[in-house]
Amino acid sequence: MKKAQIGIVGLGVMGQSLSLNFERNGYAVAGYDLDTAKVEKFLAKSAEGKAIFRVDSPTELMAALEKPRSILLMVPAGKPVDSAIAGLKDSMDAGDILIDGGNSYFLDTERRSKALAAEGLHFVGMGISGGEEGALWGPSMMFGGPKEAWDTLKPMLEAIAAKADDGAPCVTLLGPHGSGHYVKMVHNGIEYADMQLIAEIYDFLHRGLGLNNSALAKIFHDWNEGPLQSYLIEITARIFQKKDAKSANDLVDMIVDEAEQKGTGKWTSQNAFDIGAAIPTINAAVESRIISGLKEERVAASKVLHGPDQTKPDTDVDALVQAAHDALLASKVAAYAQGMEMLQTASLEYQYDLKITEIAKIWRAGCIIRARLLKDIMKSYQEKPQLANLLLDSAFKKVVESNQDNWRKIIKMAIDQGIPVLALSSALAYFDAYRSERLPANLTQAQRDFFGAHTYRRIDREGSFHTDWVTEE
Amino acid sequence: MKKAQIGIVGLGVMGQSLSLNFERNGYAVAGYDLDTAKVEKFLAKSAEGKAIFRVDSPTELMAALEKPRSILLMVPAGKPVDSAIAGLKDSMDAGDILIDGGNSYFLDTERRSKALAAEGLHFVGMGISGGEEGALWGPSMMFGGPKEAWDTLKPMLEAIAAKADDGAPCVTLLGPHGSGHYVKMVHNGIEYADMQLIAEIYDFLHRGLGLNNSALAKIFHDWNEGPLQSYLIEITARIFQKKDAKSANDLVDMIVDEAEQKGTGKWTSQNAFDIGAAIPTINAAVESRIISGLKEERVAASKVLHGPDQTKPDTDVDALVQAAHDALLASKVAAYAQGMEMLQTASLEYQYDLKITEIAKIWRAGCIIRARLLKDIMKSYQEKPQLANLLLDSAFKKVVESNQDNWRKIIKMAIDQGIPVLALSSALAYFDAYRSERLPANLTQAQRDFFGAHTYRRIDREGSFHTDWVTEE
Repeated sequence: MKKAQIGIVGLGVMGQSLSLNFERNGYAVAGYDLDTAKVEKFLAKSAEGKAIFRVDSPTELMAALEKPRSILLMVPAGKPVDSAIAGLKDSMDAGDILIDGGNSYFLDTERRSKALAAEGLHFVGMGISGGEEGALWGPSMMFGGPKEAWDTLKPMLEAIAAKADDGAPCVTLLGPHGSGHYVKMVHNGIEYADMQLIAEIYDFLHRGLGLNNSALAKIFHDWNEGPLQSYLIEITARIFQKKDAKSANDLVDMIVDEAEQKGTGKWTSQNAFDIGAAIPTINAAVESRIISGLKEERVAASKVLHGPDQTKPDTDVDALVQAAHDALLASKVAAYAQGMEMLQTASLEYQYDLKITEIAKIWRAGCIIRARLLKDIMKSYQEKPQLANLLLDSAFKKVVESNQDNWRKIIKMAIDQGIPVLALSSALAYFDAYRSERLPANLTQAQRDFFGAHTYRRIDREGSFHTDWVTEE
Repeated sequence: MKKAQIGIVGLGVMGQSLSLNFERNGYAVAGYDLDTAKVEKFLAKSAEGKAIFRVDSPTELMAALEKPRSILLMVPAGKPVDSAIAGLKDSMDAGDILIDGGNSYFLDTERRSKALAAEGLHFVGMGISGGEEGALWGPSMMFGGPKEAWDTLKPMLEAIAAKADDGAPCVTLLGPHGSGHYVKMVHNGIEYADMQLIAEIYDFLHRGLGLNNSALAKIFHDWNEGPLQSYLIEITARIFQKKDAKSANDLVDMIVDEAEQKGTGKWTSQNAFDIGAAIPTINAAVESRIISGLKEERVAASKVLHGPDQTKPDTDVDALVQAAHDALLASKVAAYAQGMEMLQTASLEYQYDLKITEIAKIWRAGCIIRARLLKDIMKSYQEKPQLANLLLDSAFKKVVESNQDNWRKIIKMAIDQGIPVLALSSALAYFDAYRSERLPANLTQAQRDFFGAHTYRRIDREGSFHTDWVTEE
């Protein structure tokens, strides 16, 4: 029997799609899943007649694979990954490669990398973005792990990866240990921000300006032709067009307004506080999902708490739609600036030696946040790898500066109408704070020294100082 | 030799002040610190002739204390607490009480409580607020631990605690295990928010309206006579009056604008994401400290990134100062609403059975966030212990509704002038989101289902639904 080049453990939606993708590109796949009925169904339907076959034990899996063996885990993050590793590792040989393709927390990946390296195995943490479609036709893959493992896997992964406009595959070795999962985590944080910014603009256009779904579909469709061009804008346009099969309504109106989350956005926020990265717009997105989840409370509160008089602005609607576009674009740039600076901070903190330009490069296609913008981000960091912040790049400086009037205008109008714009306003505040030579934190330091003797630094000399603020001079 | 009623381990600034406070209230203190020179200096100066004496080993400490022994640890959070416990516990007897009075992370306190209970010892996590002055003259103390320990310590702690206007001592048994440190953590989160809101209003009045420190001192002094009356407003007024001893300038202008932090605010933010509590204004405060810390980057960015044309508003300054007052008040209420709802969420999550009215009651005096507002908060939760959110209380509803025009106005003016108001705008967005019956999260759910098959719920029937968004009907 011909051996397989890749083993896939966990044949859920993502595992199945990746199997088909590997097979289509000429690699035989050995699939292992405890749910044999699910595997049989898959083999009998989508995988019928393809070089994808089932194995029923770790021993069978090892026997079925070419050496060094490459095994991709597609199991849920957390304990299932540890269980899968425990079940496999004793059957593996030194030099074999185990890849965790799920959304594992990067510190778990660090721990597993160390433990498996001690046993002579290569462990790879690889974030995969693109959903089911991406997995099938070409995902973006964020590879973190040993160089030897990358050299072995490179041809296979480049074959199945999404290809950018210039033909470059959207996968690369980003760094060691947990770096791949770290970058995927921040990718998801940016995705949260992007989605929340779109949601707030939708709220402004719909609740504020009274535009209907059909008008919204056209607007987002148009925006997808310009600088906002991205997968998320594209699917937003499609969503507004979708009719509900069960009623005469548009489907989007039939969906409960409580956004769920699976943890990666939350991890991004929590880790940013640990490493001291300022990502207020990503945080605003996570917070907004939490507030959206308080549906019962909100319904009750809406009957109690009154907002401002919500008169629809009688200004030119087309001009306001353009202004909303500009506000979204500027906010998006600010959100990406936060995410990219977080990656740079983390790179130092965890010694990942990340190349931001490489990250932008593999985000250009395949992943959920793929966008025209990423081509420009790639270029910016290519030219200036040490760029402190994306906003300082001349191209992006121009984008935010030239759109700032409309950016401010839309937020002010939303405020006037009582429409919450937590993410939009956080993005603007980030911009305004970042470009402030002097912030009012001198007062904060004075207060801390007043009540807690925490000391402060002076602008005119080195050292830490404490003042007795109460006693008169 | 007469025995002491309380042992204090760690005689830093806080430990010394608490020693003097206990002694002044009639309790003899045995103090233990490895730095004997520091202790000697303390005994020779502030503690001279007082019933405070030094012990030099755990054995001496145990011999010096009445039984059951009460020992208060005043050592830095983290490993020092574990070391101190390890050094003491074997010399202690069943029924003795060990109190951690530092800013320990509540989950550490949970762990230590369990471990020590298993050895027959009572472990108390007690958050202490009020700084050096509070520790000396009356702090607010958030007691979490076993009822037996509380019954033993109650007279002593009530004696040294701050007293509210009605004479009630600012200490009580809040709940078991880590609950005292949890409440202290959220107290500090609210403190961060309060300080950042004041800082942003300062920025608006100073950078925006061009008011000088002497005008600011008067404004904050005046505000301290009204509904904003609080310790933080009071010290802010004093700070603006303080002259620099080393130059002819006001001291506040000589302080570097980088706010530092010691971790409790960060923990509040990180834990809120874990339990699903929405505290955007507390998060904004932590984020703002992080951004303030990027001083070098900001100085560089200020030379590159241009904001809007900053013309000073030619409106009536007095009216704008009043509007700033109203914006600060409404934002402060929103921030407290977030903190209080977080406590309620945590109470369910960790089974602390917290009484919010009791918490507001012991925050009325002694602690850093003491404020007139807390008397009203106490009343609100006294009348309605199950109040879902402070904003729904009729008194607070009135405060935010009646001030919302000025709240919106100030944020819009700051936006026009390019002054970052991350905390102020997050507070308003929280209010507007919380009172929104329908938020745009339906779009977020549609997007998640589109790209990740994450399913959504419908407004017209139960269940989880998935749509093939791409295929035409």
